[in-house]
Amino acid sequence: MKNKRIVSGMRPTGKLHLGHYHGVLSNWLELQQEFECFFFAADWHSLTTEYANTEGIRDNIRDMVLDWLAFGIDPDKSTVFIQSQVPQHAELNLVLSMITPVSWLERNPTYKEMQENLTTKDLSTFGFLGYPVLMAADIIVYKAARVPVGQDQIPHLELTREIARRFNYLYGEVFPEPSALLTETPKVVGLDGRKMSKSYGNAIFLSDTAEETRKKVMSMVTDAQRPLRSDPGEPDRCVAFTLHSLYVPEEKRSEIVSACRSAQIGCVDCKKILAQCMIDTLAPFRSRREELSEKPDLIDEVLANGAVKAAEEAGKTMTDVRAALKV
Amino acid sequence: MKNKRIVSGMRPTGKLHLGHYHGVLSNWLELQQEFECFFFAADWHSLTTEYANTEGIRDNIRDMVLDWLAFGIDPDKSTVFIQSQVPQHAELNLVLSMITPVSWLERNPTYKEMQENLTTKDLSTFGFLGYPVLMAADIIVYKAARVPVGQDQIPHLELTREIARRFNYLYGEVFPEPSALLTETPKVVGLDGRKMSKSYGNAIFLSDTAEETRKKVMSMVTDAQRPLRSDPGEPDRCVAFTLHSLYVPEEKRSEIVSACRSAQIGCVDCKKILAQCMIDTLAPFRSRREELSEKPDLIDEVLANGAVKAAEEAGKTMTDVRAALKV
Repeated sequence: MKNKRIVSGMRPTGKLHLGHYHGVLSNWLELQQEFECFFFAADWHSLTTEYANTEGIRDNIRDMVLDWLAFGIDPDKSTVFIQSQVPQHAELNLVLSMITPVSWLERNPTYKEMQENLTTKDLSTFGFLGYPVLMAADIIVYKAARVPVGQDQIPHLELTREIARRFNYLYGEVFPEPSALLTETPKVVGLDGRKMSKSYGNAIFLSDTAEETRKKVMSMVTDAQRPLRSDPGEPDRCVAFTLHSLYVPEEKRSEIVSACRSAQIGCVDCKKILAQCMIDTLAPFRSRREELSEKPDLIDEVLANGAVKAAEEAGKTMTDVRAALKV
Repeated sequence: MKNKRIVSGMRPTGKLHLGHYHGVLSNWLELQQEFECFFFAADWHSLTTEYANTEGIRDNIRDMVLDWLAFGIDPDKSTVFIQSQVPQHAELNLVLSMITPVSWLERNPTYKEMQENLTTKDLSTFGFLGYPVLMAADIIVYKAARVPVGQDQIPHLELTREIARRFNYLYGEVFPEPSALLTETPKVVGLDGRKMSKSYGNAIFLSDTAEETRKKVMSMVTDAQRPLRSDPGEPDRCVAFTLHSLYVPEEKRSEIVSACRSAQIGCVDCKKILAQCMIDTLAPFRSRREELSEKPDLIDEVLANGAVKAAEEAGKTMTDVRAALKV
């Protein structure tokens, strides 16, 4: 029943890895069955931190959208588009900027934190300060009812709700306050045990070949306290084993747990099993990705149609906004 | 020779008065003979300070544009439009926000000054902080070569130039740096001797009738040191006389100066002369205004055509911007 609208975006980081898949994309796939979804490549948001290096944005968008489509985002069910191709995002951003106190933005916990952590980048720009305003515009320009978020995104969504409330208070009821659709995301660790991330160089990409996948899995850290094959291991301490739960069938997994704890199976064999299960699971998507990547026009078409459909809906909202503002 | 493009906007303050006419509009009339002009009603800018009270914006725009057209802005020569109807202003504003350091905006001398002076308004919004960014977008989205400004606007234009330079430095040469076209604006005082301003209630409007004009002129302050008709007066001290230079022919003015200094003419008679000259000068414009106000569709048509033409030019620039940004 498509009675509820959902908006969600990803920054165009390029090829997606398993972390993106299990953290966001698999969730999108479920949502698209039940809701009216707007999924967008947030290229304006990239500029908030990457304005000094925009070289790869266009390719990154295409690679990312290719992954979306290959893994099951269906442009007939969901609206798939690029943020910068729908001018209403920028228009509503401008309107909302007029009613958002600077102090709300300075209080944003991510703001200071990122400025402190990303010391190699200059994050003292007006656009970076204002990215929660743009995020609010992205969501409410579609009058979204819900937004899928992780726990760490709750403060941003609260700011969106505050901005929507303030608009409604000043100009009359235009926007529903979007509520959080809390998504539980399994923590996907990379080859070295840290969070999977392209920049750590520890990621398995959705677009990797079977061979690349196998090689990466075989290089994964396991249980650091099991130096010898003859030592018993502990799956709960094993980095590789965190991925077993995502790819290896439960029965097989139980066998492995016992075999590991009794030193009947070694890490090499254990990871071979994981690699094969992962390769088998991902194979149909990867072959679809292969097919799609040979039809570059298709992606263009999907994104062009998506932009038209998104702009139509966003345009309706902006008509309401103008009427409320009396401009 | 239309080789140079000029952009200039006015906030939609409603009916224009003589201060606007001699300060801005008469200058626009000259510019339109020589340049390719884009004249716009800056309604987004109104929101930077008036977001809490947008009631009158729409009527104010119409009243203002009616004055423009009645007094000689020619939509066949110049592009006349409303800022909010051209989405590229908001789009470029968003792009420029990404490369503008917050410190440039905080340093803007007008920022702190207005916050201190307009204590009855809440000017702590993100939009108010960012209005120089929007102003930069307004200008360079048309790749304007020149911007007519008064002396007090020079720092803002310098900020526009800095932002344009920064864009060009980061992404390649897209924008010409607009240069100032310094306009000398006579100081137009209001009925009470303060600067003519709607909010002071001391203004003579372009749309006033002959009778209203006469009444207002007759109520003007003159030479405060000439309490009696029999005292000699001093035109250099006389508030009303500042308007003589704009409306009374020079020869007549010289006569008045002598007659005032020798007490041969009184203030009442002197202001009668001023009122009549003003009424005669403004009569043809006012009757044209009357005519135009009976054709509301015409204003709609002018603004709709203007928005199309402006969006066409601004769209070309945004194509260049996207290419440079690689989005």
